[in-house]
Amino acid sequence: MSGSDTGHGPGGPLSAYSLDELRGRHSAKWREYPPEVLPVWVAEMDTPLAEPIAAALAAAIARGDTGYAVACGLPEAFAGFAARRFGWHTDPAAMRLVPDVMAGILEVLHLVTEPGDRVVVNTPAYPPYFYWLPRIGRQVVQSPLALGPDGYRLDLSALERDFAAGAAAFLLCNPHNPTGLVLTEEDLLAVAALADRYGVRVVSDEIHAPLVYAGARHVPFPSLDAPAAARSIAIVSASKAWNLAGLKAALAVPGPEARRDLARIDAEVSESSGMFGVIASEAAFTAGEPWLEALMAGLAANRALLGDLLAERLPGAGYQPPQATYLAWLDLRALGLGDDPAEWFLRRGAVALYSGLKFGAPGRGFARFNFGTSAELVADAVGRMAASLDGRSHTARTGALDAL
Amino acid sequence: MSGSDTGHGPGGPLSAYSLDELRGRHSAKWREYPPEVLPVWVAEMDTPLAEPIAAALAAAIARGDTGYAVACGLPEAFAGFAARRFGWHTDPAAMRLVPDVMAGILEVLHLVTEPGDRVVVNTPAYPPYFYWLPRIGRQVVQSPLALGPDGYRLDLSALERDFAAGAAAFLLCNPHNPTGLVLTEEDLLAVAALADRYGVRVVSDEIHAPLVYAGARHVPFPSLDAPAAARSIAIVSASKAWNLAGLKAALAVPGPEARRDLARIDAEVSESSGMFGVIASEAAFTAGEPWLEALMAGLAANRALLGDLLAERLPGAGYQPPQATYLAWLDLRALGLGDDPAEWFLRRGAVALYSGLKFGAPGRGFARFNFGTSAELVADAVGRMAASLDGRSHTARTGALDAL
Ligand SMILES: Cc1ncc(COP(=O)(O)O)c(C=O)c1O
Ligand SMILES: Cc1ncc(COP(=O)(O)O)c(C=O)c1O
Repeated sequence: MSGSDTGHGPGGPLSAYSLDELRGRHSAKWREYPPEVLPVWVAEMDTPLAEPIAAALAAAIARGDTGYAVACGLPEAFAGFAARRFGWHTDPAAMRLVPDVMAGILEVLHLVTEPGDRVVVNTPAYPPYFYWLPRIGRQVVQSPLALGPDGYRLDLSALERDFAAGAAAFLLCNPHNPTGLVLTEEDLLAVAALADRYGVRVVSDEIHAPLVYAGARHVPFPSLDAPAAARSIAIVSASKAWNLAGLKAALAVPGPEARRDLARIDAEVSESSGMFGVIASEAAFTAGEPWLEALMAGLAANRALLGDLLAERLPGAGYQPPQATYLAWLDLRALGLGDDPAEWFLRRGAVALYSGLKFGAPGRGFARFNFGTSAELVADAVGRMAASLDGRSHTARTGALDAL
Repeated sequence: MSGSDTGHGPGGPLSAYSLDELRGRHSAKWREYPPEVLPVWVAEMDTPLAEPIAAALAAAIARGDTGYAVACGLPEAFAGFAARRFGWHTDPAAMRLVPDVMAGILEVLHLVTEPGDRVVVNTPAYPPYFYWLPRIGRQVVQSPLALGPDGYRLDLSALERDFAAGAAAFLLCNPHNPTGLVLTEEDLLAVAALADRYGVRVVSDEIHAPLVYAGARHVPFPSLDAPAAARSIAIVSASKAWNLAGLKAALAVPGPEARRDLARIDAEVSESSGMFGVIASEAAFTAGEPWLEALMAGLAANRALLGDLLAERLPGAGYQPPQATYLAWLDLRALGLGDDPAEWFLRRGAVALYSGLKFGAPGRGFARFNFGTSAELVADAVGRMAASLDGRSHTARTGALDAL
């Protein structure tokens, strides 16, 4: 690792590791494809751990502290962070530890909906929703966001139509993956009003909340002054902002009228969380803000860099800089690569984007690009994409890719 | 921590930490009760990490390797361990990563049974079976082990009755928690014959397999030469033997005729495992055997010590040294403490055993005692139990316990 151990060297946490060092990682991002493929698909960042997190984990190793998880100081740590960052004052005693955000969503849907119930999600949507909700017997209703010249926005009339058709819950994703949309307080109050009108419970996936850029503001759904908000439950985590997805901890945080529901989560569920996830997340929310600021500076630079590179090298690609997250949702329909441009770029460019087809109906011709990496690798990825188009008549770059 | 960092100091890995150091842990064992309570309930050990595991985790921290889990070298590492230890030659390519043993059992039951199906378990049984199986819509059928003067043994006629009544699966627990029973090859072949006769699928929970004492031998169920074994799936893990439960990784390992079933597990399931669990478990199965030998020596000594202490201080307690595991299943019916002696010992002795009532019908009057700790703490726990009986007329030892 070049630069300092804190990831605060020149370039910040995003440029701490070389490509060779990253290829030594064991995680999905770096193991799913052969080494010649540059991965910009799954939502992992190429950052080192924030120093307080690394220190907390080293101490846990020294204590041999690898038994079953309990929430410990994590709820208090999140409450402090939420108060400082979002002005959200919420009671740690009402929060419940869950293994990850997806598991938390499923547990909460178990509590507030019935088998067979319809659950609305805004599409394009985080792909695992489509796998896991049916696994617990809930139907996914796709309610598309509206795509205009300035990017995506909430489509309240579509949402009303889908609520009116008989939905039990709305799985709100805010900030939104993959579009980076951050809903305003006004939007959220309109959602709450609809939810109240149609008796829909809101489950709010706020995993990307710490990753909002200047210019937008995250409003936690349960913090709103509306009955549907009071009855909502948010799922929060340090796992995206501090890159801790593999350590397995998240929190379910209820609005004031949902405490009783959430209290029914069994202790077995919390104990299936990761002990190191709890320890790392507590350190993140308590002492991880300086690192987060350095990260956000680097991400903001990459967000602009990606726009410049695409304009120059892939002018046909549609790109709206996201208001949050390190994920870019690229409109590649004008490139003439068919429904699944990610497949083209993987085979012809040796760069792995996340296929838009996995995000629901509006994902045709789109792909998700993860810029939570160094400026060099952002440029490398765009270069590979561009080069694959220059050589459209060529065959796959490497034989190894034929096996994929 | 006293002694060396490897846990191989005098007394071995079980006596590396002082009580004060252990009270600094964040895990369930040490956080569930107030500090004045000595915990001997949940199946966590008071050991430091084996040195190769600590080193692998430290390297992962330095790499910032905290993204989504994939199986990496874990299947190969387990295959090597299983071949050396059990003479079981099994194909790493057929194994699937799962977040923990319980999750693996549930995933496999999803694959090989239908909602509403009956699943047989031998009681007394690992308590979370009773929570999780109904959660996925499977009925638990309690098939008691037989308790004789020499301890527990398989009751094949009870098992046949319960298979014949229409069971879809048998969730075998071998080695058995809480009794420590290790089934012989002959027993297992008899189980397989019954399973074949009644068309029952066997799911074999082998989490305690590395923890078998001299005198018994672990036979992996899928390794048997029988059709039911070929169609069985074992769930294995390094989490008990190397104390890694909080890091979240286990493997499902199919018999030769169950590969196709297991291949249907979605990659989403594996990716919800813990990255540090994979890394730690791979190190355990590859390089953790010297530590395991030292551990087993210490556990064997504690197993004998517990017998001596109980004979001396609590002669009414029935105790059969387990053939495997660091769990002792105590028959406390003769003490006159009612159905739930653990409750008495908690309130009057400030020592937390695991209540026998949670293990199914045969658990009345029993409690589980975890001796995976130092000899000093084994003696402390038995001393607290004995003292609580000397002072039967006294009230609870500390006010803090009233709130429990
Ligand atoms: C919107 C959203 N929800 C949930 C998740 C999954 O989070 P976890 O890994 O905690 O289940 C992600 C991961 O990227 C996400 O983007
Ligand atoms: C027999 C048995 N099965 C399963 C488990 C749970 O294992 P995990 O924590 O990997 O789910 C335990 C834990 O003690 C156990 O004893």
